[in-house]
This record gives sequence, structure tokens and C-alpha cells, in this order.
Amino acid sequence: MAVIQKESGGELFYEEMPVPLPGKGEVLVKMEYAPVNPSDLSFLQGSYAEKPSYPAIPGIEGSGTVVMAGKGILPFMRKGKRVACTSTHGKGGSWAEYMVTSAMNVIPVGNDINFEQAATMIVNPLTALSFMDIIKKHKHQAVANNGAGGALGKMLVRLCKKENIKLISIVRSEESAVKLKESGAETVIIQNKDDFEEQLKKLFDNLKPTLIFDAVGGEQTKLLVEYSPAGSTIMPYANLSEQDSVFNPRTLLQQDKIIKGFFLGSHTSQQSLPKVLKNIKTAQKLIGSVLNTDIRKIYNAEEANRAIADYRNNQSKGKVLIKPGLIS
Amino acid sequence: MAVIQKESGGELFYEEMPVPLPGKGEVLVKMEYAPVNPSDLSFLQGSYAEKPSYPAIPGIEGSGTVVMAGKGILPFMRKGKRVACTSTHGKGGSWAEYMVTSAMNVIPVGNDINFEQAATMIVNPLTALSFMDIIKKHKHQAVANNGAGGALGKMLVRLCKKENIKLISIVRSEESAVKLKESGAETVIIQNKDDFEEQLKKLFDNLKPTLIFDAVGGEQTKLLVEYSPAGSTIMPYANLSEQDSVFNPRTLLQQDKIIKGFFLGSHTSQQSLPKVLKNIKTAQKLIGSVLNTDIRKIYNAEEANRAIADYRNNQSKGKVLIKPGLIS
Repeated sequence: MAVIQKESGGELFYEEMPVPLPGKGEVLVKMEYAPVNPSDLSFLQGSYAEKPSYPAIPGIEGSGTVVMAGKGILPFMRKGKRVACTSTHGKGGSWAEYMVTSAMNVIPVGNDINFEQAATMIVNPLTALSFMDIIKKHKHQAVANNGAGGALGKMLVRLCKKENIKLISIVRSEESAVKLKESGAETVIIQNKDDFEEQLKKLFDNLKPTLIFDAVGGEQTKLLVEYSPAGSTIMPYANLSEQDSVFNPRTLLQQDKIIKGFFLGSHTSQQSLPKVLKNIKTAQKLIGSVLNTDIRKIYNAEEANRAIADYRNNQSKGKVLIKPGLIS
Repeated sequence: MAVIQKESGGELFYEEMPVPLPGKGEVLVKMEYAPVNPSDLSFLQGSYAEKPSYPAIPGIEGSGTVVMAGKGILPFMRKGKRVACTSTHGKGGSWAEYMVTSAMNVIPVGNDINFEQAATMIVNPLTALSFMDIIKKHKHQAVANNGAGGALGKMLVRLCKKENIKLISIVRSEESAVKLKESGAETVIIQNKDDFEEQLKKLFDNLKPTLIFDAVGGEQTKLLVEYSPAGSTIMPYANLSEQDSVFNPRTLLQQDKIIKGFFLGSHTSQQSLPKVLKNIKTAQKLIGSVLNTDIRKIYNAEEANRAIADYRNNQSKGKVLIKPGLIS
């Protein structure tokens, strides 16, 4: 059984599918849980980097057990392991009872990590750790992040605190602001308030964030370009507003600013293997603490459409998981 | 006498002004001609990098004769010389009978260069040469440039031809396309045509320009981000459309693209002095040929408002000069 989408933007069905077989270098994972991430929403709209052929099985990451190994040493080593995993382009996603993926895309997890946490161990934690790598590499003292009410926003709050980096978190609602402050955030502003632009300007003038992680896009990008200090980098990494981003080109050119996208896949492929492995080890170690994800609700795979709607409407209230297998 | 603007965005007046005196390291230039450039339009709208105090004398570059030297060796060496010059922030611009500027901002020109050509010797030629430096530094094989009907667009056509770089020029009208082809341009597309997007996509797919000089901004920036090859750099350097630029953040992040502004002032300040001097020498050498500017009309300073309107409405038909002194 698997969740399938029959056309770009179309609704989801939970249907009988043949169990796929792992080829050379691949493993078959019996899936336990898979989260809904912003990148899954892109996938469902057909605007994700790697275009699927339809019908397509969505789902970029998840957790489960390796039940079969294709040819090769790495698949053999992973057999029987409890794992966090990501899908492989062209092989079907994680919202399925069984997923075939490259053995490179599965990370064994200890028995102390439950399958719910393991399901969210890759995309957000590795993004947060990559952000910290970029911050340290370019010696930023202060940074900002919007769409900060979600799991990644909270991870960034805790990592920046640990590394003594000043962080401005921009959230949508008062409720998210309260929760984020409970996670330890010191500086939070709310984009739905009337005085948002004024507050943003004041905070940017005071704290001078030179790297702005932009998950929102749209008109907000214009403010980030406008009020960041000269020489800043604006780094789009998602498009939660689902609007085109806007900026004043004169500000960009006169103030030496750069807009440079971040995409986990291409960032990782540009890193050395030891660096990537180091971040994976850190993710394994911190998944229960600094890199913890609040899980709000688990949906059975038959309810995938409801799961998506719920996630879309409540993105900052905690993660939504899909349980791809039959209810056990 | 000088052209003055009494408030940001306001009309221009030609009024009696005291002749300024050069301080240490400065010279007094008796001005001959000064062009109207896109950066002057920004200045007049109050959106130029360096905000003036009002009343302000506009004019970023021009030509003339050094008639008085402040303290210092360089001012002394420049005294009596025919020069091309740029204004110094806080000192008043070039649309004046007399301008004080840093002796660093005046470049002696030979008797073979007339004052009309010398007036346009700095901003466009050094921008074009800087573009070539960037192209060569990052080994781009193919580039694109929009708003290409103007003086800079023609210089770029000739320089790219010389250096064997493929160039796609985007112009506004059929008329500009014809003229640009007369200047040697091989690949020209017209943005006002119905099939512009289709033509742009086709040309970008074929020639794969990895560096896009964007003088236009607005909605056109979205197309440049969309259709350039993965890994491309979009380089805003003006805002002829006078609209905010737009882009799809997902395209930017999934395709590893960068939007990075170019501003001659800050680019030059980041270059080594020998590099800057080399480009100045090249500009002096090529001003009558590859870096030639077509001069269409000369206005007396009393007619500054008409000069601006004329330039704004006919930007690609040739350069408009202002003659700041009394008619001789």
C-alpha cells in the first residue's frame, strides 16, 4: 500500500502497490513514520527540484527497518537496521509501506531513538546544522530566520544559543512567538502585527544580522533586503508564502547585498564526505535534545489529504507524521 | 551658475552659486560637458546610494579643465589639465560651471579626445571594463545583458566580440535592435514583442548564458532567474523599469542561482589600484573606438528639465549631454 498522487497538484489516494525490489546499492525499508515537510508541499504542487513521473509516491524522509538488501557491501551492512532515511529520485517516496532507496540515504539509529523522532532526523536537523556551518564559515555574529515557528526554527534557536550567535526569529502569530520563547528564543517578532516593518527595522538596526535565512519569500523578502546591513546575504530556502519574492534592485546593488538560495541536497553534495558524516553523527546525538522535533499528530495513510491540510494550516504548531503502514 | 534640485524628486533650476574652493587633496574643475546617465536619474529620484543634502547639484561625471588646485601633490600635478572627472560625495555634482572634487576623481585626457567624449569616459567605460573583468575572472563563456540599447550595451557588444564571449543583448524596441546590430551585435531580442518569453527561453537554452547583467529589473528579472542555466548569476546594476524585481525563490534555491548587485563605486573600491589604473588606461585608449559613446544632443544648463525628459524617453537613441557653463 502507498499514498499516491496521480497528477501534479492533485489529491492523494492510498492504494495497493506492488512491493518494490532493491537493486544494486539499494535497500528496501519497511516504513514506520514519515513527516510532512515544506519540501513535501512543493513536491505535491509539482514545484520540487526533482520532477516525478506520475502516478508518484510522495514523501522525502521517514523512518523504518531495512528488510531487504540489494547487491553491495553497504546494503548488506544496513540489513535489519532501524533507520532514518530519505527517498531516492525516481524510486518512490516515503509515504508508502515499503520504500526502495539508495543505501547511502539510510542512517542507522540507536534503540534509544523512537521511530517518531527518527522520521524527522534528516531534513530539518541537517538543514539546521548546515546553517550553523555557513554561519561559522563566514563568521556571522548575528543572523535572522523567518517562518521560525516550525521545527527548524526551534532547532536554530537552540543551536544559536549554544554557539552564542545572536538570532532574530520572525514568526507569523503571537501564539508561535510565545512557544518559541519557551524554546529559549530571546528575540522574536511577529509578522502579522501592524508595526512589523517598524519593529523589523529597529531590530535589524540594533542587532545587525548579516545573514538572513528566508523561508517565507514574497513581499517579506523586500523588507529583509531593505533593512539588513550593507554587505548582507539573504538566503531563500523555502517559499512558505507561495508568492514570488520581491526586492528593490537599487538597494541590492548600492548596498552590496547578495540573494543566494540554500537547498539541502545541493549543499550536501558540495560538502566533503567527512563533513556530511560529522553532521549526521551530530544529528543522531542531538535528536532527543537540541534537534528535537515536537510531534503534534499522527495520521494514518488513508487520511493523507487531511494530514496535508492540517499541516498547511498549522505549520508552527508541531510536526504532522503519516503512518504509511496499516495500523498495527 | 549651477543646476540645482531643491528636494528629492523635485524639478531643476539653473541658479547663481558661489564658486567653491578646493580643499586639501581636491581640485576645482571648470566644467565643459556632463552626461545624463541612469545613475543620475536615481540621484534625481533620491534613490542613489549616497543621499545628498538639499539643495543639491546633480551630475555624477563630466569633463573640463582643472583651474585651481588644493594642497597636495596630486592636485598640483593635475592643475591646468583637460580632464574627465566624477563628483565627490558631499561636494556638489558635475552639472555646474565649477565643481570641486577629489584629485583622485579626475583623469587627464589627451588633446585627441574632445570634451564631449571625455564627459562620458568614466561611468559607462569603466562599468563595461569591470563587466569584462568579472566575465574573465569567473570564466563565463556566454553572458546576457538587458537594457542593451544604450551606450553601455554597445560597448559590451564590441568588448565581447573582441574577447570572443557570446553575448545575448535584450533591447526594448525593434529600432534599438537594428542599431545594436549595426554596432556588431549578433544576438539581439526585443522585450516588447509578444513572443519575448519564448524567444528568451530558446536563446538561453541554446547559448546558456551563466552571467546575466540586469539593468532593467521588475518582472523581467523573474524570466532571467527562470531561464538561465543552473548555477547562474543574475547581476542587477540599474533599475530602468523603476519597478521592484521579482523572482521565484524555489527556482533560485533549487537551481543554485545567485542574485548579486553590481555598483561601480563599490566594485572599484574592492579592486587593487593597479587594476583600476589599468582599466582607466584602457578607457583612455579605447574611448574613440570600442568604448565610444554616441552623443545625440547637447542641452544648455537652463534646459536641464527638458534634457532629463528627453533622455528618459529616448534612452537608447544616444547620449544626452548638459553644457553646464554659459554658452560660449
